[in-house]
Amino acid sequence: MHQTFDAALGIDLLHANQTGADHNRAHFDEWGITCFNLMSSPGAGKTALLERTLAGLHHDLRMAVIEGDMTTELDADRLRQYGIPVIAINTGRSCHLDAQMVAGGIHTFSHTYDPTQFDLVLVENVGNLVCPAEFEVGEHAKVALLSITEGEDKPLKYPIMFQEADCLLLTKMDLAPYLDISLERITANVRQMNPHAAILPVSAKTGEGLEAWFSWVRHRCQAQSSALAQPLQR
Amino acid sequence: MHQTFDAALGIDLLHANQTGADHNRAHFDEWGITCFNLMSSPGAGKTALLERTLAGLHHDLRMAVIEGDMTTELDADRLRQYGIPVIAINTGRSCHLDAQMVAGGIHTFSHTYDPTQFDLVLVENVGNLVCPAEFEVGEHAKVALLSITEGEDKPLKYPIMFQEADCLLLTKMDLAPYLDISLERITANVRQMNPHAAILPVSAKTGEGLEAWFSWVRHRCQAQSSALAQPLQR
Repeated sequence: MHQTFDAALGIDLLHANQTGADHNRAHFDEWGITCFNLMSSPGAGKTALLERTLAGLHHDLRMAVIEGDMTTELDADRLRQYGIPVIAINTGRSCHLDAQMVAGGIHTFSHTYDPTQFDLVLVENVGNLVCPAEFEVGEHAKVALLSITEGEDKPLKYPIMFQEADCLLLTKMDLAPYLDISLERITANVRQMNPHAAILPVSAKTGEGLEAWFSWVRHRCQAQSSALAQPLQR
Repeated sequence: MHQTFDAALGIDLLHANQTGADHNRAHFDEWGITCFNLMSSPGAGKTALLERTLAGLHHDLRMAVIEGDMTTELDADRLRQYGIPVIAINTGRSCHLDAQMVAGGIHTFSHTYDPTQFDLVLVENVGNLVCPAEFEVGEHAKVALLSITEGEDKPLKYPIMFQEADCLLLTKMDLAPYLDISLERITANVRQMNPHAAILPVSAKTGEGLEAWFSWVRHRCQAQSSALAQPLQR
């Protein structure tokens, strides 16, 4: 975090962001869409995971992607090859997506496509293990990725991301034989921060663990649909 | 960047940070110390590089470390084993070191040790490829690390860090045989952003490239000393 209170406007920026995120989520709920916010360090493999996910789940779910990058549409172009709507947002100098930027993406999406025809919107955040964790964008679940090349200690050193995650993917498992790391110690460090998150070791390269990830996605989408179909119990 | 203008205080935070950084640098100059600011994504190997550097250069340079982390002193404790002063700064929720935090570290350092007895202060920033690049802390050179596991496109996607770097270390070269990357393409992407930075492929694990890094460090420290010894030409 750099600064969260704007005295000129008299608003707490995190609070204003939360209001915007709730508004975005209300739109997703209205359209019957589940939204995930994918976050990680740069190069942990968010786009590679999305490529595998779009290929692996396109028979089960109608998907779209909101793609956040400081500059370039390199990742957006990779994902457009899967024939799904990809809305690119360039954040400029900003180190994270915020609710207002994603609202712009949702606006473009819902005016270009019929949003009620979709099941899942995957938001790929800017690569940053710190700031995106504090700015909700309207997601129903936060998915964090940690590449095992980053080392065992990251959950302890960057606690907020690991505390906030609903699902943690340990990526690049194909490199495990060449690294001095222990999956048990990484898992223990994650558990110190977060007793409940699903922890899924995966490799987008070999396909290891992807079925478990696809199951998690399907389950969360079904749970979200059921919750919306259910009238509120008071 | 989240927000750089504090309307209540009526100050531009980046401008105020620059003033603080200049102040820190004046202290380093007065003491004959060269200062490097080490920056990268989480887990690119800043601490491993520092371990190798402290071991490899301790006959040539008297070194100290200012170690920035959101929480924990895990990295500081690793480096203390090399018998040098390590000043730990916990940034809390902040995603980067700023000049004021480092001023606090310099204060502790100069009151605990005789700063004129040192040649080089290495500042290890919070792992983040975005924000630290915009906040000078008083360094004479910016050293950026990019782990080759992060992919070839990072210089294009996170331009500010690569534009600002004086030296770019391509780390974890020992993993090159297991990755689908080309050193030529990474270098070409860096050069699009920065025509002048030294680009040094290294592996802290195997020692590959470390002599070139040590030479770069020695050269920069000598150049800095010579510049300070020289009276200003007007």
